[in-house]
Amino acid sequence: MSGLDDGGNGTGGAYGGYRDTAQVDMPMAPPRASAPVAMPGARVVTPSPSRPVPTPRTVVDGPIPLPATESVPLDRICTVERHLDEILAAVPQPHPIELAVLDAQGLLCAEEVTSQRALPAFDQAALDGYAARAEDVEAALPQAPVELAVVGESVAGAGAPSSIGPGLALKVAAGAMLPTGADVVVPAVWTDQGTVRVAVHAGPPAGGYVRRAGDDVAPGDPAVQVGTPIGPAQISLLAAVGRERVLVRPRPRIAVLCAGTELVDVGTVPAPGQVVDVNSYALAAAARDAGAEAYRSGILPSDPRRLREVLESQLLRSDLVLIAGTFASGGFDLVQEALAELGDMRTRQVTMHPGPAQAFGRLGRDEIPVICIPGEPVAALVAFEVFVRPAIRLMLGKRQLFRRTVQAVAGQQLVSPLGYRQYLHGTVMRHPDGGYVVEPVGDGTEALLARMARANCLIVVDEDVTEVAEGGLVTVMPLLLGG
Amino acid sequence: MSGLDDGGNGTGGAYGGYRDTAQVDMPMAPPRASAPVAMPGARVVTPSPSRPVPTPRTVVDGPIPLPATESVPLDRICTVERHLDEILAAVPQPHPIELAVLDAQGLLCAEEVTSQRALPAFDQAALDGYAARAEDVEAALPQAPVELAVVGESVAGAGAPSSIGPGLALKVAAGAMLPTGADVVVPAVWTDQGTVRVAVHAGPPAGGYVRRAGDDVAPGDPAVQVGTPIGPAQISLLAAVGRERVLVRPRPRIAVLCAGTELVDVGTVPAPGQVVDVNSYALAAAARDAGAEAYRSGILPSDPRRLREVLESQLLRSDLVLIAGTFASGGFDLVQEALAELGDMRTRQVTMHPGPAQAFGRLGRDEIPVICIPGEPVAALVAFEVFVRPAIRLMLGKRQLFRRTVQAVAGQQLVSPLGYRQYLHGTVMRHPDGGYVVEPVGDGTEALLARMARANCLIVVDEDVTEVAEGGLVTVMPLLLGG
Repeated sequence: MSGLDDGGNGTGGAYGGYRDTAQVDMPMAPPRASAPVAMPGARVVTPSPSRPVPTPRTVVDGPIPLPATESVPLDRICTVERHLDEILAAVPQPHPIELAVLDAQGLLCAEEVTSQRALPAFDQAALDGYAARAEDVEAALPQAPVELAVVGESVAGAGAPSSIGPGLALKVAAGAMLPTGADVVVPAVWTDQGTVRVAVHAGPPAGGYVRRAGDDVAPGDPAVQVGTPIGPAQISLLAAVGRERVLVRPRPRIAVLCAGTELVDVGTVPAPGQVVDVNSYALAAAARDAGAEAYRSGILPSDPRRLREVLESQLLRSDLVLIAGTFASGGFDLVQEALAELGDMRTRQVTMHPGPAQAFGRLGRDEIPVICIPGEPVAALVAFEVFVRPAIRLMLGKRQLFRRTVQAVAGQQLVSPLGYRQYLHGTVMRHPDGGYVVEPVGDGTEALLARMARANCLIVVDEDVTEVAEGGLVTVMPLLLGG
Repeated sequence: MSGLDDGGNGTGGAYGGYRDTAQVDMPMAPPRASAPVAMPGARVVTPSPSRPVPTPRTVVDGPIPLPATESVPLDRICTVERHLDEILAAVPQPHPIELAVLDAQGLLCAEEVTSQRALPAFDQAALDGYAARAEDVEAALPQAPVELAVVGESVAGAGAPSSIGPGLALKVAAGAMLPTGADVVVPAVWTDQGTVRVAVHAGPPAGGYVRRAGDDVAPGDPAVQVGTPIGPAQISLLAAVGRERVLVRPRPRIAVLCAGTELVDVGTVPAPGQVVDVNSYALAAAARDAGAEAYRSGILPSDPRRLREVLESQLLRSDLVLIAGTFASGGFDLVQEALAELGDMRTRQVTMHPGPAQAFGRLGRDEIPVICIPGEPVAALVAFEVFVRPAIRLMLGKRQLFRRTVQAVAGQQLVSPLGYRQYLHGTVMRHPDGGYVVEPVGDGTEALLARMARANCLIVVDEDVTEVAEGGLVTVMPLLLGG
C-alpha cells in the first residue's frame, strides 16, 4: 500500500519518482483511416475510442520540428534525465539549523525529538462532569439514578489533588486533575448537575472519560522523528513536550541572477531593442514557492571585474546560484567566460523544447552548484520546473521531488519535434464524463507571457512522440501554487 | 466542465462547495447477517462488497454516545453548518493593499492590470539564426541549399534596427530586433552557420520563428485580472508590463490567544495540574498555513482589567481574533465576561465531536469577528479546520474555501454519537486495488497529540451515522500542508 499523495511533503512516494513524470503512459489505439502516418522511430498518439473526445477545434500551427542539431558536438547533447540526474547528484544537503518552532513550519525535522515529560502529565478529566468510582455508578439508570455526595469542585489548573471515597463525587472541569480514588468521570450531561448532591443517570465503565498520565506520550518516547514535515500538529506536540526550538532542514538560500545585454530593470522604460528583466522576479517567486529562501539579485553587470565580483559574492552567500539568460546572446559571452574562471561549467544542448541551452557546474572554493537556464521567460520557467524545483526539494529533504502528473485527453492536436521532450503550457480541466482534458495555451515557440499566465499545467510530450492527435492521451503536470 | 481542483487557489470550484465536505456519499450495501442493527433515525454504514476490504483488526472502543444534552437551552444548540454559515456571513473582506510584486505571491490580484506596452515591444527573432525574406529561402533543401550574403549580426539589446533586401541575411540572436525587410528567421541549425555567406538548408514559412510586436499583449490589453492568484507566471507578466507593485487582497491579520487558568507558557516547566499552552503555537501555525498573517499573542491574563486591555488592543490590530479555551473551566468565566462587555458573543453547543463548545461574535467599535474554540488541543485544531480555515480563505478572496474530500474504506469499525458530526484524525492511504483506505489514529475522546501528529486526514462521520463497519465508506479530508 503506497502513501497517499501528500503534495510532496515527504510522507509518501519514493525518491526518484520523477521518472514517471516524463512517461506518457498511454494505451495505443489501433491506427485509423484518418490517422497520420508515423515516421520511423516516432510515435503518433491517436485517440483511444473509450475516452471522451471534446468538441473539435481549429488545429493551431505547431512548432516546426527541428532537424538534427548536427552543429552541436555530440558530447554536449544530453537528455533531460541525464542533466537532471547530474544536478540532483551534485546539490548539497545544507546543514540542519535550529529554529523557533513557529519558524520551523513547513520544514522537515532533523532531529529525533524525545519527550522528557509524560503527556498528559497527570490523570485528568476528559470532559466536564463528576469524578467518581466506577463501581458506585455502574448500576445507574435514568429511571433509577445513583445519588452521590459532591465533596467539592476542581477546575483545570488547580494544583493540589483531592481524594474521594465510596459514595462521593468531585465536580471536575475538563483537564482538571482526577482526585485520588476516582477512576471515572461521569459526563455532566448524564447527571442532574447538582452541586451538593448529584443524581447520576448512567455510569461509564472504569476509566471512562479519564485521560491517564502518559497515555499519549511517556517520558523517553519519541515525539517527532527525523524527516517528519512540521505542521500545526507537530508544533502542538513540540510545544507540549516543552520545545521552543527544533532542529530542521533549512530552506536553501538561492541567488537568482539574470544575464543579457538587452535587459533593463522593471522600473525602467525599455528603449527599442531592450527588454524588462522579468526572470529574476518570476524565478525568485518560483523558488520561494518551491520552499527556498530566494534572493533576487537582478541583472549581472557587463563590466568583467564587477561581474566576477558579483558572482563570487553570490557563491559565498548561497547554497545554489540560478542564472537565467547566460546563453542569450549566443557565441562568445562574458558571463560564460566569468563562470568558466570559477570552475567547470558543463554547457549542454538538452533534448527538450523550449530551451535546450542548459548548463550546470559546481563553482568556487565551496563548489556551490550553479544552474544556468535560458533567458526566454517561458523557457526559463519550464527549466525551473524541470531542473531547479526538484533540486530545491531535494535540498529541503523532501522525499517527493516531483509534481504529480495525470493523464489527460488532448483537446486539440499537438505536434512536437522528434527527439525532443516538449513542455507546453496548457489548461487542464476535469471532463464531465470523467478524466481530464487539456488544451495548450500557445504553441511553445513564442514568448507568450500572457498566455502562460492563463495556464494551469505543463503538457509533457515525450521525445519519441511527434504528434498527439486530438483525443489522444498526454501526460500533464498541474502547476499548483505551493503544490 | 468544471475546473481542475487547484488546491483552492481560486481557479476552480464554486463558493459554498463545503456542503460536500460533510456529505457521506456512500452506496448502501444490502444488510448482511452480521450487520449491526440500526437504531431508528440512525444509519449504520456497512461494507460495499465491491470495495477492497483490508485485513481485519481488533475493534477499538469507540466514544460512548452521549445522551441528548437536555441541560443546554435549545436555542444554543446548533449544527456545524449553521455556525459556519454565520461566521462566513460575518467575516469582513479586508481592503486591498498595494504590495511589491514579489510580496504579492500567493495572494489574489485586486485590480484589473492593463498593459501600457506591447509585448513583445518589437518584432524579434524567436531563436538564434538568420533573419531573411521567406521568399528567398522557401525553396531551400538540404541537397539544394540557398546561399545568402550575411550583412551583419544583431544581438539582443542592440537598439538601431538594420534592414535587409533580397538575397541578404542578418545573423540574429534570440530576442534581437528583426531588421526591416525580413519576415522570417532561419534557425542557425538549419544552415551552415556561415558568417560572410550562409547556406540555408530549409526555410520556414513567412513569419516563422518571428515574434511580432504585440503578439502576446497589445497596449490596453488586460494582463492580470481581478481575482487571479498571483504566482510566478503572473509575476513574470506584471514585471513585463512594467509593474513593480500590484493591488492585492491582503493576508488577514489574525490574533491567536488562549485562555485557561491551567496554562503556562512553553518555556515554563508545568507544576502539577498545569498544562503548557500549545494552542497559541499550533493555531498560529495553522492560520499561517491557511494564508493568514498570524500573531501569537499567547495566554490571556487573569486580571480583569489587563484582560480587557489585551482584548481591546487585539481588536484594534486584527481582522479576526481567535481564542482557544474560553470555555475551558466551565460555568462562570472571566474571559466570557470580558468578551460580553465588548459585544454580543453567541455561545453555542455545536452538534460536533470533539469540541461542541463554540462561540462567535463581532466585538468592539469595528465589529471585529471573534471566534472562540475549545481549549483541548485536538478539538482546537478540528475547530480550526471546520470554522477558521474557511473564514481565512474567504477573507483572502479564494473561491475554494474548503479542503477537497475523498471517499475511503474504513480499515476498522468507527462509532459515532447520534446527532453529532464526528471528526476523527486518521491515516489515509491509497489501496493497491484502487481507492483509499483510512484508519483512525485515536478514538476521538482523548487529547492525543502524538497520535494527531501522525495523522494525515480528518475522518468525517455524519450526524445520522452511529457506526461505520469495517469496510464501509466514509468521507475523508486529507490535511495537506499548504493545501
